[in-house]
Amino acid sequence: MSGNSTVASHLPRGFQAAGVAAGIKKTGAPDLALIVSERDCVAAATFTTNVVQAAPVVRGKSQLASPRATIRAVVINSGCANACTGTAGLADAEETARLVAEALVRQHPSDNAWRITAEQVFTMSTGVIGVPLPMDKLRAGIPAAAQQLSPQGLNEVARAIMTTDTRPKIASIDRGAWRIAGIAKGAGMIHPNMATLLSCILTDAAVEPALLREFLHQAVAVSFNRIVIDGDTSTNDTVLLLANGAGGIAIETPGQRNTFQQALNDVCVNLAQQVVRDGEGVTKFITLRITGAHDEHMADQVGRSIARSPLVKTAFYGEDANWGRVIAAAGYSGAAVDPNKMTLWFGPVKTFEAGEPTDYDEADASAAMKSDEIEVRLDLGLGEAETVLWTCDLSHEYVTINGKYRT
Amino acid sequence: MSGNSTVASHLPRGFQAAGVAAGIKKTGAPDLALIVSERDCVAAATFTTNVVQAAPVVRGKSQLASPRATIRAVVINSGCANACTGTAGLADAEETARLVAEALVRQHPSDNAWRITAEQVFTMSTGVIGVPLPMDKLRAGIPAAAQQLSPQGLNEVARAIMTTDTRPKIASIDRGAWRIAGIAKGAGMIHPNMATLLSCILTDAAVEPALLREFLHQAVAVSFNRIVIDGDTSTNDTVLLLANGAGGIAIETPGQRNTFQQALNDVCVNLAQQVVRDGEGVTKFITLRITGAHDEHMADQVGRSIARSPLVKTAFYGEDANWGRVIAAAGYSGAAVDPNKMTLWFGPVKTFEAGEPTDYDEADASAAMKSDEIEVRLDLGLGEAETVLWTCDLSHEYVTINGKYRT
Repeated sequence: MSGNSTVASHLPRGFQAAGVAAGIKKTGAPDLALIVSERDCVAAATFTTNVVQAAPVVRGKSQLASPRATIRAVVINSGCANACTGTAGLADAEETARLVAEALVRQHPSDNAWRITAEQVFTMSTGVIGVPLPMDKLRAGIPAAAQQLSPQGLNEVARAIMTTDTRPKIASIDRGAWRIAGIAKGAGMIHPNMATLLSCILTDAAVEPALLREFLHQAVAVSFNRIVIDGDTSTNDTVLLLANGAGGIAIETPGQRNTFQQALNDVCVNLAQQVVRDGEGVTKFITLRITGAHDEHMADQVGRSIARSPLVKTAFYGEDANWGRVIAAAGYSGAAVDPNKMTLWFGPVKTFEAGEPTDYDEADASAAMKSDEIEVRLDLGLGEAETVLWTCDLSHEYVTINGKYRT
Repeated sequence: MSGNSTVASHLPRGFQAAGVAAGIKKTGAPDLALIVSERDCVAAATFTTNVVQAAPVVRGKSQLASPRATIRAVVINSGCANACTGTAGLADAEETARLVAEALVRQHPSDNAWRITAEQVFTMSTGVIGVPLPMDKLRAGIPAAAQQLSPQGLNEVARAIMTTDTRPKIASIDRGAWRIAGIAKGAGMIHPNMATLLSCILTDAAVEPALLREFLHQAVAVSFNRIVIDGDTSTNDTVLLLANGAGGIAIETPGQRNTFQQALNDVCVNLAQQVVRDGEGVTKFITLRITGAHDEHMADQVGRSIARSPLVKTAFYGEDANWGRVIAAAGYSGAAVDPNKMTLWFGPVKTFEAGEPTDYDEADASAAMKSDEIEVRLDLGLGEAETVLWTCDLSHEYVTINGKYRT
């Protein structure tokens, strides 16, 4: 698999993409991305569980509510979330979709295959909450993006959807008969719960709608839903999976299904880990493994409590092996844990066992904390269930970024 | 009421106190506090809800399980939490209590009134988790503290229990017939839930045990349980209320009860607010008022979600009126809120109403954020229930303090 930004700018067959600077961001950085498919795509998506939902989320949910819905284009803007913008925000999302459909029709005036409707255009937005979409910028930017569409445009799309991300996030797998390519953006407001952040994953395999939804559901569960940056669940989180069948291969047999599911999982895990590694102000990538739980829910409850704890996160930032904070966060997680049955490791160093500190060497624990990538394992000693979460530290830079985000 | 540290060092009648530097803290700052009562005290306490509980919490709970338990002395050390220390930690807490009883007997060799037992000594600890109590320091420090006991010692006690607190926290009320004086310490790991942090409140009124517990329960609910610093619930949180009756007045009639409850509430609210104002790295004191909820639970759920949000807290630190983050945090709180019914004010500035931004002036919102004390009100537009929480921002200094706490 290709999992970084310098490779893999080739889209799966039948897709084209472009990213431009439309002037939505004050900085002049790219802020408008367009992805189109030459054929109708089957689509599946997961959305934020926040009850406050941005206009594009409200629109996208209703759009994909019909099992026969097909998608031809995705338009994503950064710099403005179009959230908490009321009915005007919904109208703006609708107009954005219409502008895309019009631009594509204008681009292919004599080709009936490009007579697409606004209903076939999926919209996504990310950025500041509570500010209207600057429609004048979109009216100019969308035709400009349409003119630059190219089968090599994936990297430009990944760049145009960045907010506080420091680098584009792309992952792809090429199995010959079919390809999967995905992009994602973070980098704050990340606490996925059934859905997360913005990600768009494309494949040229042919997949039935119900199966595509099942593939996405399973892949998100083991990837985007396992990452925690700051515990804030966004109003805009959306993961979209499009399958256009342009490779000519249908995913049907159990063997094909397994292979495709695994490839999709790999792409999503790769993207999710990229989001954490590039999280706001992140200096440490932490793999948090909770084992020995009664059930998966308990493992998850304990893991999320630890991953969200500001005291745990700042200790990692300070490279301080303050393992007591991990035990304390497990203790207030709400799960029926027992400190006398817990065992805790920082990297290879066992620090706590059976209710008491071990006689570990502080120098070993400190050495484990110096690494950029740290595995923390907490065994609850209660059962067989386990989970893994990927999380990060909380740094001065996170505070700097989020103290002045709008200015 | 007296609510700052320079006044009110007078204890209620019949109490004496002292604080000394026993060498538990590497800095040489005071770290051992002793409070004694000349008479048996009726006692009530609330403890942390964390299932990982420090040795002194385990001991204190069992001690006060008997409704006829009486307390004569409280010993509090800072610099070491005696948490995650197993059976050795319990033995250390027990020995600490015995050392206090022995020191007091030695101090009053011919006075039978001072033949107290370890069972009458309440212990509290705060500091680093997972480190054994340095008993050699306590063996020397406790007799030293006993020698310095004085009716003016409250300020020394408040100083000796500080960890990352920058100032001692004292509040007192003198009604003539009876007095209430309390001390508290913060300043991180604060997310009270039934109980919080360390606080010791003394009165010379006479109160029946069941009534004393009821008084404390009500007072904690409107004070310590309404503050949020970082969302981490400690392993050591304890609020202890002692009544020794030395003022000669029993609290019995409904009128007396109301007056006493109100005075106790005032002392606890004052202490709780002092803890927030002196929270780790705090630059803003935020009064968060949630109104229009279906019930108090909903108001509380929404308020805590906002108060814990790192994105909300960093925006306050940056003086950025990023109200969308408040709406988003309400949205992911788990409560069945409706953004179209919400109204949000930052100070006097209404920023959001009926699902959309108002036409407020950004300069007015910015001005409201400049103040050291900010009131945020979110009306949910659903019912009549409301709550108030006191919380704070998340600053660079919080990260600095907690990144290197043990070193």
